[in-house]
Amino acid sequence: MKGKFITLEGCEGAGKSAQCNLLAEYFNKNNIDYILTREPGGTPVAEKIRSIILSPENKGMSYECETLLYAAARADHLSNKIIPALNDGKLVLCDRFLDSSLAYQAYARGLGTETVEKANFFAYENCMPDVTLFLDISPEDAFRRKGGVDKNDRIELEGAEFHMKVYKGYLALAEKYPMRFIKIPCMGNKYQTHDNIVSALKSRGIL
Amino acid sequence: MKGKFITLEGCEGAGKSAQCNLLAEYFNKNNIDYILTREPGGTPVAEKIRSIILSPENKGMSYECETLLYAAARADHLSNKIIPALNDGKLVLCDRFLDSSLAYQAYARGLGTETVEKANFFAYENCMPDVTLFLDISPEDAFRRKGGVDKNDRIELEGAEFHMKVYKGYLALAEKYPMRFIKIPCMGNKYQTHDNIVSALKSRGIL
Repeated sequence: MKGKFITLEGCEGAGKSAQCNLLAEYFNKNNIDYILTREPGGTPVAEKIRSIILSPENKGMSYECETLLYAAARADHLSNKIIPALNDGKLVLCDRFLDSSLAYQAYARGLGTETVEKANFFAYENCMPDVTLFLDISPEDAFRRKGGVDKNDRIELEGAEFHMKVYKGYLALAEKYPMRFIKIPCMGNKYQTHDNIVSALKSRGIL
Repeated sequence: MKGKFITLEGCEGAGKSAQCNLLAEYFNKNNIDYILTREPGGTPVAEKIRSIILSPENKGMSYECETLLYAAARADHLSNKIIPALNDGKLVLCDRFLDSSLAYQAYARGLGTETVEKANFFAYENCMPDVTLFLDISPEDAFRRKGGVDKNDRIELEGAEFHMKVYKGYLALAEKYPMRFIKIPCMGNKYQTHDNIVSALKSRGIL
């Protein structure tokens, strides 16, 4: 595939959306042909799956079902949006991807990486990110900085201990995949974090 | 698990619902403690997934996404309904199960059995049917007998060639898994087919 595939990862409140928007502005200014997308979602079918995953009324859902729903949404997103864009030579920036399933389901839910890898065979076999930007801020620090986090969906409603496990999961992934992961320091303001991201992408030859 | 797990499989119009109802009557008369359930569906979450799978408006869905959605619904159905019932010593009768994914997605969609098996790791690792009753009637014969078939959902709307591939897929599965599969002749009326099923279940020691 001709295009580059960048994913952005981090805990709730880490600032992923803000950084996606700042990167999008940067791409616009620099005439970089890109698409900005997100998971779960990104296609009409995947957005419908997203609504099942995140609805608080589905709290009885088994963890394996949850994992497979994320994988199903991801398979449609890859086939119908990400892979075609990469084949067209576009840069693809995706807010959350496979590593969210690993951090949330494998580590925080405790399903283990093998189960999550099995469910995500389509991504592993067809399309993995060139670079994964991990916004390295703990859920407590994110909470303090933001003065509270959203508690609207079934995942955000999980407790502090769960979100700390997610964070530790990301740290484990960053150690496991040092070639793909870049830990982005983000204790400064969002513009400083953005500069850290741009520098990191330049150092990896993505920009 | 203490209970027995029976699945019923066949092409569109083969008479699965009618046979499930006749078997349920038989279980009632003979004081057999059972549950009757169906796929995709069987739990509140799985029924929501069913509506995404079957809605004709989702016709652009990738085949891998479709396969993973069936597997997600199945994982929830197993965890929250089938396995608890089997642990309680109940007989579980399920209208469609894993072999539908193999016949429809692996054979008719052409994804191959390996892909469908990967997506369905949770069923393979945790709970497989004791017996699978295959209503052995081709889609053409079913069509002729019924005087037309329903064309309400995304799968029923597929053409005759697709449904013939499903039928051939089932025949291949029956050959591959002779210990689990029982081919039920069903060119007679529904009561004759029911008698064939009861005889088969008795000969396998299920009843």
